[in-house]
Amino acid sequence: MSDTKQNPGAEPLESFETSFPSSHKVFVEVEHGPWILRVPKRRIHLSGDESALDVYDTTGPQGIDVTKGVPPLRKEWIAARESGGGSNVSQMHYARRGEITPEMTFVAEREGVSPEFVREEIASGRAVMPCNINHPESEPMIIGRKFLVKINSNIGNSAVSSTIQEEVDKLHWSVRWGADTVMDLSTGDNIHETREHIIRNSAVPIGTVPLYQCLEKVNGRAEDLTIDLFLETLEEQAKQGVDYFTIHAGVLLRYVPMTADRLTGIVSRGGSIMAKWCLAHHKENFLYTEFERICELMKRYDVAFSLGDGLRPGSIKDANDEAQLAELKTLGELTEIAWKHDVQVMIEGPGHVPLHKIKENVDLQREWTHDAPFYTLGPLVTDIAPGYDHITSAIGAAIIGGHGTAMLCYVTPKEHLGLPNRDDVKTGVITYKIAAHAADLAKGHKGAQDWDDALSKARFEFRWEDQFNLCLDPPTAREYHDATLPADGAKVAHFCSMCGPNFCSMKITEDVRKYAKEKGLETAEAIQAGMQSKKDEFRDTGGKFYQPTNS
Amino acid sequence: MSDTKQNPGAEPLESFETSFPSSHKVFVEVEHGPWILRVPKRRIHLSGDESALDVYDTTGPQGIDVTKGVPPLRKEWIAARESGGGSNVSQMHYARRGEITPEMTFVAEREGVSPEFVREEIASGRAVMPCNINHPESEPMIIGRKFLVKINSNIGNSAVSSTIQEEVDKLHWSVRWGADTVMDLSTGDNIHETREHIIRNSAVPIGTVPLYQCLEKVNGRAEDLTIDLFLETLEEQAKQGVDYFTIHAGVLLRYVPMTADRLTGIVSRGGSIMAKWCLAHHKENFLYTEFERICELMKRYDVAFSLGDGLRPGSIKDANDEAQLAELKTLGELTEIAWKHDVQVMIEGPGHVPLHKIKENVDLQREWTHDAPFYTLGPLVTDIAPGYDHITSAIGAAIIGGHGTAMLCYVTPKEHLGLPNRDDVKTGVITYKIAAHAADLAKGHKGAQDWDDALSKARFEFRWEDQFNLCLDPPTAREYHDATLPADGAKVAHFCSMCGPNFCSMKITEDVRKYAKEKGLETAEAIQAGMQSKKDEFRDTGGKFYQPTNS
Repeated sequence: MSDTKQNPGAEPLESFETSFPSSHKVFVEVEHGPWILRVPKRRIHLSGDESALDVYDTTGPQGIDVTKGVPPLRKEWIAARESGGGSNVSQMHYARRGEITPEMTFVAEREGVSPEFVREEIASGRAVMPCNINHPESEPMIIGRKFLVKINSNIGNSAVSSTIQEEVDKLHWSVRWGADTVMDLSTGDNIHETREHIIRNSAVPIGTVPLYQCLEKVNGRAEDLTIDLFLETLEEQAKQGVDYFTIHAGVLLRYVPMTADRLTGIVSRGGSIMAKWCLAHHKENFLYTEFERICELMKRYDVAFSLGDGLRPGSIKDANDEAQLAELKTLGELTEIAWKHDVQVMIEGPGHVPLHKIKENVDLQREWTHDAPFYTLGPLVTDIAPGYDHITSAIGAAIIGGHGTAMLCYVTPKEHLGLPNRDDVKTGVITYKIAAHAADLAKGHKGAQDWDDALSKARFEFRWEDQFNLCLDPPTAREYHDATLPADGAKVAHFCSMCGPNFCSMKITEDVRKYAKEKGLETAEAIQAGMQSKKDEFRDTGGKFYQPTNS
Repeated sequence: MSDTKQNPGAEPLESFETSFPSSHKVFVEVEHGPWILRVPKRRIHLSGDESALDVYDTTGPQGIDVTKGVPPLRKEWIAARESGGGSNVSQMHYARRGEITPEMTFVAEREGVSPEFVREEIASGRAVMPCNINHPESEPMIIGRKFLVKINSNIGNSAVSSTIQEEVDKLHWSVRWGADTVMDLSTGDNIHETREHIIRNSAVPIGTVPLYQCLEKVNGRAEDLTIDLFLETLEEQAKQGVDYFTIHAGVLLRYVPMTADRLTGIVSRGGSIMAKWCLAHHKENFLYTEFERICELMKRYDVAFSLGDGLRPGSIKDANDEAQLAELKTLGELTEIAWKHDVQVMIEGPGHVPLHKIKENVDLQREWTHDAPFYTLGPLVTDIAPGYDHITSAIGAAIIGGHGTAMLCYVTPKEHLGLPNRDDVKTGVITYKIAAHAADLAKGHKGAQDWDDALSKARFEFRWEDQFNLCLDPPTAREYHDATLPADGAKVAHFCSMCGPNFCSMKITEDVRKYAKEKGLETAEAIQAGMQSKKDEFRDTGGKFYQPTNS
């Protein structure tokens, strides 16, 4: 591996145009009250008479000065609401009052549904729109089982390596390839400053695990953590504009011993910190006992809960065990409390789960946490492939997404082994876009099938350039093609590199179809009636499979 | 991409020891009649007192002179049977006579079941053991829903590129990483010679699509194909030792028009060739009408049928359509005919199928083809990710494997774009081992869980070297780890690179567990009773999460 890849901050990111040739950003304008909302899409232009394809776009404003950050898209919307003077500014609060916010109208256009439908889903708690009032730069997006499946990428420095510039680059790189939200999991020095840079430059919601910063403040002594310190840290981060907090309030004292006989104990960092606190004090988790105080804070900024699964399984062996399920039930109890305050909630899920136990996770999550959006890490369906855990987990992610999980937290090839570099981030995001899109197809989401059909049609018609441009990762597809057939002529050739000209099944099929249509032979009966007499005529043309067009 | 990777024949393959550090091949000796069968396994040695883990091994004899080929393991077994003078030498024939062959005993040891169980599965048609009497070099293996899920890799030159040496290297590289069978899909020059080199050097069954060579013989004019030419080609390949033939006998004349309105028509090469033949002659597919003549030939060599799905869908849109399902029904009819001759059969399946339509494929295949083993290509669960189709298809492969599909045909990252190089072959094989193993876990196959548990235990106990050695791809795991923490000291450190020393959840959990055990606090009740009095004691130790061991 080259040094430049290990130190990606040294190289500028490739441009939007390099990543997506023949694409450009378009903005659909939607009126909402006094405002014109400009909803971004990526338009993929195709050759000839083919219609362009518009796809969901997470890339955010381009060409922005990192020291200045992206424009505050929502600033006026938020200000207009604040003039109302309410102490609860959550989207759920407005939704439950019957109010359709500009944010709801915005996501309605993005998702191809009505604003009223968005409002209902948020009011019911089945969907979440993470949008802190102090993060006006964010382009509204929604997370819920009735919407497109979303993906999250994790970035963040640790004590061991990486710089702020690298983290902002990872943010931009994540959203370039399709990350819908980004979690800043920094744990080392400069935690506040790193986060500030990330939020000011992010057009997607940012999540954090505030416990990590709290622990820095007490020099790593878990037993010194207090609710006051925790609330102070939440306030600090909420003021910066963090859109959702992972909070491990379901790790109860009585659940900790349930993990003692596990193969891999407690693998969640937050979970193990809170477990240690509980044992040291022999008290109940203060995040649980003081949960309503946390709710009071969250609603003043509209920060959403991502209720953490601190007792998630860390191995196939531990999947769906007593500790995991006990915590899940508690998360359901906490969900009801948060909803009482009109605070938005999603529920985090595992982790490591074999294929046959995945659906049970979704079924129990829906039942016990009242259909709050589920947000899962993978799950990995086997433990034996470190180095390929983006794949082991994408298998589980696609399946759990197909069952209705609303957001999938990505895993990179470096999971369990080291910190992801820029290439790993891209691989993780693309892999999770695959899982999310596969789930969208299975759920029959409007528009998802169109993308597949456009690409398959381009493939069948030998429109190579269109095929590349329609890919999730156009540069890689082109590079792979060119590795075998680099000549420009090959991109218009009526055969592909796998089979050579005499064996191209698509060319043969095209001939079959054309022949059948010319002769009006579109049904089996017609063939029976008409083919025999035409046989000799066909043979007289030479009957060759392939008449080269460019030789 | 470097030139050497595009021309892998130029570089020798890395050694078995480089691929699998701390592994060596062991042979379990099993008596069968006058013979001692030596069944290969790969033994992964672990550190300290940990037991070694034996895993299924496909790598075959090492250090063999390619010009001489691997030793003919089954030569005496076959000769002893031939002295019986039977005209049907298929394993199914013996199984149905109640005879347990050495091959059956061999796979019983490999799979951890009884020889009688193997015999029953083969006799019933639920499992297939491809082992041509002219391929005595093969180590017997079995394909069936009650056994470990198998994977196939495709190699083969085309008119466009690649050499014989490259193809033999791809064979060795495929089995190194776990391919259970290999298909030689060569279509260009030297087709006979390439195949000869592959078979003589292969300890795994080799499959082919004989139609490709037939078409070479008629200079690409499909309408000149005849059953006699086809049988002559089958005989040529059967004499060389091909273990299974893909035969597209289910592409019936009346099914061809069902594809006219498809988004992507007929994408199978064999399927489109036969469709063209049918239309040109206005006759029924000769592979169907003369199927019994083919069976007569197959049983004289014990070549297994892999009944091809010539009308498989080439896009998500076309999945599970009329043409695909019509052909599947016909494959069931042909299965019954083959079984009448005691010829072994497996059924090929798609292709491109969205998540929610995968199970239907397995359900209909089981019902209509009488539980013959299912052998699927992927399926890809979306069309929008060329360059990542190993992943899009591994998602479908894991799911369909979990539902009982017996063998999964790999897909490489170059699928739809170009010819795979050596790296692509490895990536494809490893990705499919993940899918197959995930399915084995879901099916509860004996031994599958042990591997995951061994790796997870090593991870939890910070035995980094063991963790690498237990991976499907040890060198890649080690490289990824070393990219972040290259010092040797890091491999014995009690923290991993993701979190840094103060945040290691595994270390914390270890402490929690140790503490709980020391104090006898293994239940929630015990904690309630005992913790309070111990709290101060714990705090007095400093209560730090982490006491560095190597700083």
